[in-house]
Amino acid sequence: MVVEIISVGTELLLGNIVNTNTAYLAEKCAGLGLSCYFQTVVGDNPKRLEDTFKLAYDRSDVIILGGGLGPTGDDLTKETVAKVMGLKLVEDAATLESIKAHFVKIGWKDIPDNNWKQALAPEGAIVVANGNGTAPGLIIPKDGKHVILMPGPPNEMIPMFENDIRPYLRSLSDKILVSKMLKLVGTGESKAADMIKDILDTQTNPTVAPYAKTGQVHFRVTAMANNEEEGEELLRPMLDELYKRFGSMIYTTDENETLEEVVVKQLSEKGLTITTAESLTGGLIGSTLVNVSGVSSIYKEGFITYSDEAKIKLLGVSEDTIAHHTAVSHETAREMAEGGAKAAGADVCVAVTGIAGPDGGTPEKPVGRVYVACAYNGKTVVEEYNLSGNRQKVRDNTVVKALDLVRRMVAGI
Amino acid sequence: MVVEIISVGTELLLGNIVNTNTAYLAEKCAGLGLSCYFQTVVGDNPKRLEDTFKLAYDRSDVIILGGGLGPTGDDLTKETVAKVMGLKLVEDAATLESIKAHFVKIGWKDIPDNNWKQALAPEGAIVVANGNGTAPGLIIPKDGKHVILMPGPPNEMIPMFENDIRPYLRSLSDKILVSKMLKLVGTGESKAADMIKDILDTQTNPTVAPYAKTGQVHFRVTAMANNEEEGEELLRPMLDELYKRFGSMIYTTDENETLEEVVVKQLSEKGLTITTAESLTGGLIGSTLVNVSGVSSIYKEGFITYSDEAKIKLLGVSEDTIAHHTAVSHETAREMAEGGAKAAGADVCVAVTGIAGPDGGTPEKPVGRVYVACAYNGKTVVEEYNLSGNRQKVRDNTVVKALDLVRRMVAGI
Repeated sequence: MVVEIISVGTELLLGNIVNTNTAYLAEKCAGLGLSCYFQTVVGDNPKRLEDTFKLAYDRSDVIILGGGLGPTGDDLTKETVAKVMGLKLVEDAATLESIKAHFVKIGWKDIPDNNWKQALAPEGAIVVANGNGTAPGLIIPKDGKHVILMPGPPNEMIPMFENDIRPYLRSLSDKILVSKMLKLVGTGESKAADMIKDILDTQTNPTVAPYAKTGQVHFRVTAMANNEEEGEELLRPMLDELYKRFGSMIYTTDENETLEEVVVKQLSEKGLTITTAESLTGGLIGSTLVNVSGVSSIYKEGFITYSDEAKIKLLGVSEDTIAHHTAVSHETAREMAEGGAKAAGADVCVAVTGIAGPDGGTPEKPVGRVYVACAYNGKTVVEEYNLSGNRQKVRDNTVVKALDLVRRMVAGI
Repeated sequence: MVVEIISVGTELLLGNIVNTNTAYLAEKCAGLGLSCYFQTVVGDNPKRLEDTFKLAYDRSDVIILGGGLGPTGDDLTKETVAKVMGLKLVEDAATLESIKAHFVKIGWKDIPDNNWKQALAPEGAIVVANGNGTAPGLIIPKDGKHVILMPGPPNEMIPMFENDIRPYLRSLSDKILVSKMLKLVGTGESKAADMIKDILDTQTNPTVAPYAKTGQVHFRVTAMANNEEEGEELLRPMLDELYKRFGSMIYTTDENETLEEVVVKQLSEKGLTITTAESLTGGLIGSTLVNVSGVSSIYKEGFITYSDEAKIKLLGVSEDTIAHHTAVSHETAREMAEGGAKAAGADVCVAVTGIAGPDGGTPEKPVGRVYVACAYNGKTVVEEYNLSGNRQKVRDNTVVKALDLVRRMVAGI
């Protein structure tokens, strides 16, 4: 079944707010096995709203509209949908009562006139109570199609979706989707896609879709099946094949797991502590690690050593090393990692130094040159990278390289 | 002129990511005086993309498409747009060179085959260089319409928009919009809107529009005028009035200036150095400061002190203070700031300690309790906050509070 999501609201068109509702609904619908091909934002303009809904009603099976259900004259979603679907609006007694109750609850004596129109519903519609506002939701089934209207505010929409709309949508399909997310570090999107070009070109069920993230590539592998078990069975050979191709580049198959979570888990399981010695990232590795709840048992302290002096003073990098090799060098990175581990008394230290740009590049060491070092278990590994992109991207990418080096060293891969 | 925004990407349709690009572009286009009536998300499917673009090309003057410019076979935006517009694709020599240079820079010997197609452009298109990736942008003017193609990743799209697309769009209109962005810290959106309710209710030219950001509120004040001078004149009394209402909450009126840039500039001008002592933010204040190019003369080093021991060892917080008041306290924050300044030999130290959650809250000190301290010029100010939202939001908001405290103390306001 094909679902289409329409958001009605001027705030979205003006960019005053970000469309988090659609992302929420899209993810939930994908999890229900509904295919989403279009998402649209339109304002409270009768003609444009009508055109947009008509198009969606024509090409999709389930149309979810959010917003424009409020009490003001501007709010036209229900009226427009009823018109296109050829349905009359009739008063819903239960809604009328709940509107009255709402105003009693908030202590208003007079109910504003325009709130009464919220009690109207297209004939044949299932009215869905709104526990958190006055505008009820509507489910309008007609000729094998299903039109869903929900209020715009997320704190009204989300509980309504979870309580009433999702169970309704689930009842529409007998197939389910089972999917895994393979997350890779150490290669770019196009190179990774090249490595499985034959698979990408011939996929049917399961499907494989690549997603590029900074410094990472994710592949979503999805099977359509009659039940969970059949889905897992369909996924298995494909996952095995992808593991064969990408091997230790894959750091997780858990959709919700991040690289920093993998690293923190790995360290926690081995009872190892880590410290960070950061130059160009200025604390970004540390703040990424502390994104992980429960990191405090393995991460006690970190050093932001932006200047040469700080590298010498806090990490014990030798003045000679910086004088001979500069602060952005293999040698300095190594001493930062080894000195950081010592200074913090930590089992592992990851250190980074580099040129984030836009200034500071030289012909031998251009902007984007980064050295990542990790000291662990009596051994120090230093890796050299030439990263592209602006200052922020170079630094974001450096964080990924640093975490990945820790992952590989601690895992011994 | 009417602008329409089309985002091409399966990740959006699946709800894997939130459509922040469209919010960004919508806000910027509104600032340029362009009306936006429709925003659409569609996948990399040739037929559906073609239908969507055709509709937009038919009903709008400026069509901005984001995404689907990558090197893989999936990426079809350019090909589809060229087809609908009836334009041939030709090889762009400059792009070809820059793709080669990109792969040389990142040290790859072989350029993946599919990257070559990124050098193709519809005839008559203006090719816009991408400083942060391999996919160039395109501006395709034809028959009074303007089709703009940009890459999907925000770190590529935003600089491209700012550097090339925005100036192009500005040049399309004879009336000009002159706007200022008033950026405020220290109040929420609804409170700030309340403070100027009379203005928001009666505005015509200039207009005032609020935008909520994490820990900040931005007001865009826009005048429509025949020229820059007339625009400035229209803006002046409104800006004066807003300054009267918000005073020192306003940290800049420069649209592109961030709070960290203001702080770094302020410190640089006074010849002051700063250090950071971070607990719950784990390096996020440091990494925010180093976002500012040229920060190295004022920021030499910082401390990530996540554990009690690190606060004692690196910052000289007294064991007694932590034992009596806990690490999340007014007293510990003060000692972190004072000790951090001393340890780093810096003129200013900003320190934060708090409970980011989801665990660790107590009835007296709930999740979101944060202490921000700043030591400067023989004086230490400590502020207590109860911040709402999840772990990430509490920490992002803490960074804003910390930078703002530095700003106010150094400015003496």
